[in-house]
Parts: sequence; C-alpha cells; structure tokens
Amino acid sequence: MSPPKAFAVIAGVGPGTGSSVARRFAKSYPVIVLARTPASYEGVVSDIESSGGQAIGINTDLSDEASVKAAFKKITTELFPNTPLAAAIFNPGGGFVRKPFLEITEKEFASGYDNQAKGAFLFSKATLPLLLKGVEENLEHPPSLIFTGATASVRGSANFSVFAAGKFALRALSQSLAREFGPKGVHVSHVIVDGVIDIPRTKAWKFEHEDAKLSPDAIADSYWFLHTQPRTTFAFEIDLRPYVEKW
Amino acid sequence: MSPPKAFAVIAGVGPGTGSSVARRFAKSYPVIVLARTPASYEGVVSDIESSGGQAIGINTDLSDEASVKAAFKKITTELFPNTPLAAAIFNPGGGFVRKPFLEITEKEFASGYDNQAKGAFLFSKATLPLLLKGVEENLEHPPSLIFTGATASVRGSANFSVFAAGKFALRALSQSLAREFGPKGVHVSHVIVDGVIDIPRTKAWKFEHEDAKLSPDAIADSYWFLHTQPRTTFAFEIDLRPYVEKW
Amino acid sequence: MSPPKAFAVIAGVGPGTGSSVARRFAKSYPVIVLARTPASYEGVVSDIESSGGQAIGINTDLSDEASVKAAFKKITTELFPNTPLAAAIFNPGGGFVRKPFLEITEKEFASGYDNQAKGAFLFSKATLPLLLKGVEENLEHPPSLIFTGATASVRGSANFSVFAAGKFALRALSQSLAREFGPKGVHVSHVIVDGVIDIPRTKAWKFEHEDAKLSPDAIADSYWFLHTQPRTTFAFEIDLRPYVEKW
Amino acid sequence: MSPPKAFAVIAGVGPGTGSSVARRFAKSYPVIVLARTPASYEGVVSDIESSGGQAIGINTDLSDEASVKAAFKKITTELFPNTPLAAAIFNPGGGFVRKPFLEITEKEFASGYDNQAKGAFLFSKATLPLLLKGVEENLEHPPSLIFTGATASVRGSANFSVFAAGKFALRALSQSLAREFGPKGVHVSHVIVDGVIDIPRTKAWKFEHEDAKLSPDAIADSYWFLHTQPRTTFAFEIDLRPYVEKW
Repeated sequence: MSPPKAFAVIAGVGPGTGSSVARRFAKSYPVIVLARTPASYEGVVSDIESSGGQAIGINTDLSDEASVKAAFKKITTELFPNTPLAAAIFNPGGGFVRKPFLEITEKEFASGYDNQAKGAFLFSKATLPLLLKGVEENLEHPPSLIFTGATASVRGSANFSVFAAGKFALRALSQSLAREFGPKGVHVSHVIVDGVIDIPRTKAWKFEHEDAKLSPDAIADSYWFLHTQPRTTFAFEIDLRPYVEKW
Repeated sequence: MSPPKAFAVIAGVGPGTGSSVARRFAKSYPVIVLARTPASYEGVVSDIESSGGQAIGINTDLSDEASVKAAFKKITTELFPNTPLAAAIFNPGGGFVRKPFLEITEKEFASGYDNQAKGAFLFSKATLPLLLKGVEENLEHPPSLIFTGATASVRGSANFSVFAAGKFALRALSQSLAREFGPKGVHVSHVIVDGVIDIPRTKAWKFEHEDAKLSPDAIADSYWFLHTQPRTTFAFEIDLRPYVEKW
Repeated sequence: MSPPKAFAVIAGVGPGTGSSVARRFAKSYPVIVLARTPASYEGVVSDIESSGGQAIGINTDLSDEASVKAAFKKITTELFPNTPLAAAIFNPGGGFVRKPFLEITEKEFASGYDNQAKGAFLFSKATLPLLLKGVEENLEHPPSLIFTGATASVRGSANFSVFAAGKFALRALSQSLAREFGPKGVHVSHVIVDGVIDIPRTKAWKFEHEDAKLSPDAIADSYWFLHTQPRTTFAFEIDLRPYVEKW
Repeated sequence: MSPPKAFAVIAGVGPGTGSSVARRFAKSYPVIVLARTPASYEGVVSDIESSGGQAIGINTDLSDEASVKAAFKKITTELFPNTPLAAAIFNPGGGFVRKPFLEITEKEFASGYDNQAKGAFLFSKATLPLLLKGVEENLEHPPSLIFTGATASVRGSANFSVFAAGKFALRALSQSLAREFGPKGVHVSHVIVDGVIDIPRTKAWKFEHEDAKLSPDAIADSYWFLHTQPRTTFAFEIDLRPYVEKW
C-alpha cells in the first residue's frame, strides 16, 4: 500500500462533534483520532473502517505534554512518516465545571485551562509543523487547524468561570495562531458552538421545539467547509446554533 | 413550462460578489437579479443563461421604496406568482465615502444609511413574507436571507464614518431579524467581507503577496454553504479575508 | 459681565440623563440645552439658574439640518461668540420603536436613523470646530464629545431593529470620530446605558430588587469623569448598568 | 488606635499602575500591597506613609495558592481582623512573553495563565468573602473588585498567544464574577489598558507625539472613580488609551 498524500487528526473524540468530524474527514483522508480511552474512539474507528475509510485511535491525554509527544512520535515515525497533515481539529470537552465561584477549588479552576488552553497549545505545537509541510507540498486544500469553541468562548456567565476561562484562552490562542500562520498558508479557524448538541447524553433533554439541538453531523459539515476554502477567502470564525436558540 | 418550486433573488449585482452569488445560486434556482441599471446585470444574466440556468434582471433602486415595491410586484404577479423564495441576498455596494469628517455633507452621510440600512430594510420587508412561504412549503433547504457586511460593519475607522454608520446599522438589522425569524425557520446570516475583492476595478492593485484579494466565487461558495445548513445548525456570522490580510 | 472661558452644550434634555448631565456640567460651565420644545428644558434651566449657574435653552430638532444650523448660529453669534466649547453631549431619546419587523413602516424605520445617527452627525459637524477651538485655547480639560448609547448599541434584539439600527450607526460614528479627532486633542466617548433609568416615566415600574434602576445623576457623574480625563488616558467606552441587571 | 472601618488591597505593585492605585486608595483607606519582593513595594509604602497614609507590604506570589493563603491569613488575623474590605485590585504584570509560537515552551505558555488567570482566581477567592462583608456592613462605597486588562484582553495578536491567553481568561473570570457578585452588591470591573504606560522602564521610549504614554496616576483615578459608583450605576468595563494611540 502506498503512503497517503496527507492525513487528518482529530483530538477529542466522543459520541458528538469529534466523531462526526472524524467520519466527515475520513471520506477524504486517513484519520487519527485521539482520546483518553479506547472506549471513546473505538466506535468511530470501526464506523469509518466499515465505510471503507481508514482510522486509527491513539490513547492520548491532550493536557499532558509527554502523552501528546508520544502520540505524535508514533504518528510521525510509525504511522505516517514524512506525510503532511491536511487538517488538525481540536475538540476536547474537558474542563466543564458549573458552580458558584466560592465553591470552586484551585484544581477545578485549573481544569478549564488544562483541558482547553494547555491542550490546544500542545496540540498546536505538535500539528503546526506538519501542517506547514502540507503548505510546502501544495495539498489540494490549505492545511487547516480548527478549534471548537462554545458560548463560553465569548461570554463569561455567572457560575461558568472555569469553562469560560479555558474557552476564552483557547480563542485568544486561535486568533494569535490565525494571524501568525495564516500568512504562511495554514487556515486557522475557531467555531463557536452555541447550544445543546444532539448526542446520546442529551437525548432525554426535551425542548419546546423540535430540532432544538445542534446536529453533530451538520457541525462536521461546517468544519469540512472551512477546510475547503481557498487561501484567498479564509473564514476565521463562525457561530453555530439551533434556529430556536436564544442568543 | 411548469413553474419552479422556488427561486432566489440577489440585490446588488455588479462585477464582484453579487454576480458570483447569482451564478452560484442559479445552479439550483431561477434567479432574479436587481441593480440600478441593466449594464450592471446584463453580463451575469447572459452568463447564467448560456450555462443553462434562468436569470432575469430588474432595474431597481434598493434605497427607493416605490422602486423596490414595483420590482417585487412584478416578481410576485408576473414572474413567479405563488412561488416561495428559497434565498434572498442583499449585496448593494453603495454608500462608500472616505473623507475627513468635517468635509462630509449631510447628503453624503445619508448615502451610507440609504444604500445599506434603508435598502436592507426595504429588501427584507419585501422578501421575508416570501421566505416564510418557503418555510411553509418545506423547501429542501431552510429559506435564507443573507446580508453582505464589511470590515466597516464592526469597526468605525477614521474617515469611514459614512460607510461604517450604514454597515453597523445593517448588522443591527441582521441580528434583529435573525432573532425574530430564525425561530420561524428563516436562516438570516451576515457575512463580513474583510479585504479587497478581486474584481476588474481592483485588477491593477498590486500587493506584496499573490492571492491577496478575496475571490468573489469563493465568497459565493460561503453564501451557498450557509444556505444549505439545516435549521438545527444555523450560522449567523462568518468573516472572510485573504490569508495575508492584517486584522 | 465678561464672556466665559468656555461653555457646554447638551442635546436631548428631558427629565432623565440629559437634565442630570446639564446640571452636572453647569457647576463648571454655562450650558446650552437643546430640545424640541421648551417644556423639555424649562425645568432644568430654572434648576440651574436657581443654583447660581447659567443655562439657556434653544428649541432645536436635532434631526433637522436647518434647525441645528440655526441653533449654532445663535450660539456662536449671539450667545457665546468666539468662545470655545468645553463639552458637547449628544443624548436625544428619539427613534425608539419596538414592534414585529413586518409591521414597521419605512418612516418608522427611518426614525431610528434620523434621531440617533443623523442627529449625531449634524451635532458633531456643528460642535467639532468649537471643540477644536477649545484644544487650541488649552482649556483645563480636553474638550469632550460624548454620545449616549444603549443596550441596542451592541445588540440587535428581536423587535428592536429600528432603535438598534440607529444606535449601532451612532456607535460607528463615535468610533470613527474618536479615531480622527482623538489625535487632535478632542476626547470622543460613547457611554452604553444598559438598563432602565430612574425617571418620572419609569417610577411606576417595580422590580424585585431595590435600586434596580440607573440613577441619572450617577450617569452624569460618569460623563463628567470622562470629561476630566487627561489626554494621556482617554476612555472611549464605558458600560453602565444597575447591579442586579441581567447582561 | 481604633481599627479602621475598612481597608484596600492591591495585588501587583511595581513602579506603574499598582503603585499609583495604592497611593490613590490610601487617601481613603489603609492599604495592603502585595508583591513578590520588598523591592517592588517598599517605595510606595514609604511614599504613602510620608503622606500620612497607612500601607503595609506583604511578600506574595499571587500564582501560588499557599503564598496567597498565607498573606490573607496574616491580613485577617493579625493586621485587620474582622474588618471588611472596601476594594481589591488585581494588577500583576507577569506572563508577558512575545515570541513566535513554535519557540514557546509549555512552561512559558503556562506563565500567562499562572500570572493572570490563576492569580486572579486565587486573589478573588481570598477577597470576595471580605468584600461581601463590606456589603453587609454597608460601607460608604460598594465594595469593589477591579482587574487590570490590556490590549491582549480582547485581541490575540501574532506572537502574543501567551499573554493573550492569560488576559482573555482573566476577562472571562471578571465577567463571570461581575454577573455572580454584582447582584450581591460587589462591584466587579475590568479595565482595558491599551498602550504604553509612562513608567521608569519606558522613559527612554520616544514617540512622535508628546503625551503618548498613559499616566499611571490617571489610570488610578479611573479605578477610584469606578470604586465610587453607586450600585444603581455600575460600570463593568472601561478602555483607556493615549489620545494618539492607534486602535
């Protein structure tokens, strides 16, 4: 089997956005999916393989430098040596804490930063050299680095200081990388997901209106659309929400 | 010939974004293009027809209530009676004035409002009932009302008060309509075009980097992508700029 | 009586913010108050005079070019010839319409622009030359041009398109003027008033918490504070709301 | 000597904003100043005492939980037992790193968070109970918690990812606390300092215009003004810059 021209890596794969994004990008690229435990990625890996795609899961704690380095060492030496990266998606869900401020411990507060900002930093450090290689090799679409944001990326609500601190920091990083690496040909984007996503965990949540939850497959279509934009016309930010969402 | 299931209307068609959007939407719908003079729309109408599409131009001054009413009377009684509207795009370029504030006349200042905000108001009043009809008839994609913004939609730069006042007002209207008509099933979006568009008028403008101008066809692809989003996952705003643009 | 060193002008004087601002600035300057009818300004003029200050009301329709020109002709030829302007405050309340979009007439929509943006344009054209004269004459505080904003300056809510279009446009103008005239020594600011103001008209509105309405005198203190900032340290924007306001 | 009615604490005291704020608040309250080393606070403590005020410095590493706890144990048991806090100002300068992204180490990236967000978290946890005590005791001015922001609080520029991540996270925390503790009577504010501050370290930086640097004393006046606002009329955010600053 000849090596692929390029591959994609999706960090943070559970039953929602991450898996849908992996399935969407797997239509065009072999994908690596990163998650803390095999239970998180086994389903999507098997889905992709049974659809004729190629997917490999690697146990990775995105907020741990050694773990991220080990994952990318495996990728660049064993799995896809000398292969450019077409797309890197950062989508971990950790760091969500909702409680009155005076009850938050320092360790809980740090979880917002560790999961969202530190994780994004480590992931960006590992993927940007491979994305720049994709620019050099003139891949079909500009290599893309896409970060998942949330309502808390632009609004610090009461009781949401932990998650908002992490998500604001992640957005700062996204902007800074877009301004540094955009001119080098890497498309850096930030997607604000504003609402409840329709996943198994939220199945029981009933709303007044039907279709009141975001479709993870439709979110994935937006990521893919961003990936296919030419460098003349890059979007940095897009906000996604159900038609009935209050905002 | 049987009547079409739905049609699209694009207001503000010149050699740039408007024509590209018209060509893109004409792949799926008959399109009406509105511009002050036939010289603005004749080229795109003939392009579309020679590609097998259907396009009709109507002379319209978007900032004039009587002119807009006449155009839509023609559309709803002669051209597409009882036909829902799939997409309405507001893209007029008028109202651009760049000069020191104390040299601006009241008439010049009004041109920003008239072309951008008043025009958008009249266009929205005319199209929303037809878009709501599209919701009732359960068209393939949620009926869409898309407004073209600019850098001046989010930044009032020195010497840009006229255009910024018009574009800020247009963005206010877009937000208000998204919040009122989103829950009714109409997808209202606002696209921030941040940079120089690659059109005949800007051909001579040379930049340090190649690909430093926005592609109007790529802008049109973004409008089409917005149009195809399902109602579970609507984007309100997207910003588009060349990879080397400073922002 | 020798002519004053400088004076202030407040446009839009009713029972709320405008009158409080006039009283506050009248402690240091003779003030001109502009309103459509004497009923709006007679009370504050008499308040100021009975406190030992100097105040003059002029009937002015801020959205009418001839009316604004007439008022400033009177000011610069009869009342305060050759006198620099220390502060100009734009505070008219007109253009507030709250209704479903499809019920709004073109004339109603224009009222947001006319009262807020066109009025601010005309007022700025009339006052900036007098404020620049204040820079030349090295007044104690940098001459100030302050605009009153609202929640609708930064958010286009459902049913608020008229007022939001006017207030967004006013904010665009404010930013543009701050960037053009700040470096010339004029302090241009925009104050976002986010909440219900405690005035006679809102006396009957009861809230769960006490002190749930903005104090017009405290708003005026913020305007005065902005006016006294040195040019090394200008604030452009400040947002004011009651402690219990949701935002 | 009878105990004071209330005191103020300023975290992050060097030769700029922190010292000016301490001097300003010391006109009304005894002040505690926190900094890593006595060299940072000895000057301002002696300034305040020679002006007849009261100031005490405590060596504190704001990003270290044990150090912050020790400082506040000393304050609440030895220095000001049973005394409410009138104002708490968070102003540490650490975490400023400016370099290309791929050269940043994980430790450097963490310094933005540690100094700005973690420090602000620890400081808020320590001060909010004392500020709430000030609400109960109905102090003259609403107890205030004020955070120092920067350009990087609202813009992630190229090469500024470290500082921007920290400052964005700090702003998220500020918003969340304002929304939670505002209704409880604590005035939480965030000040965006946008420009070069006129301190010994920047004395040699020459600009085209005079007065092109922010005055730390004028910044301190803004903090004091925020502190004196009544709860009917709280500002959350204010942006400060020199009149010639580009923004």
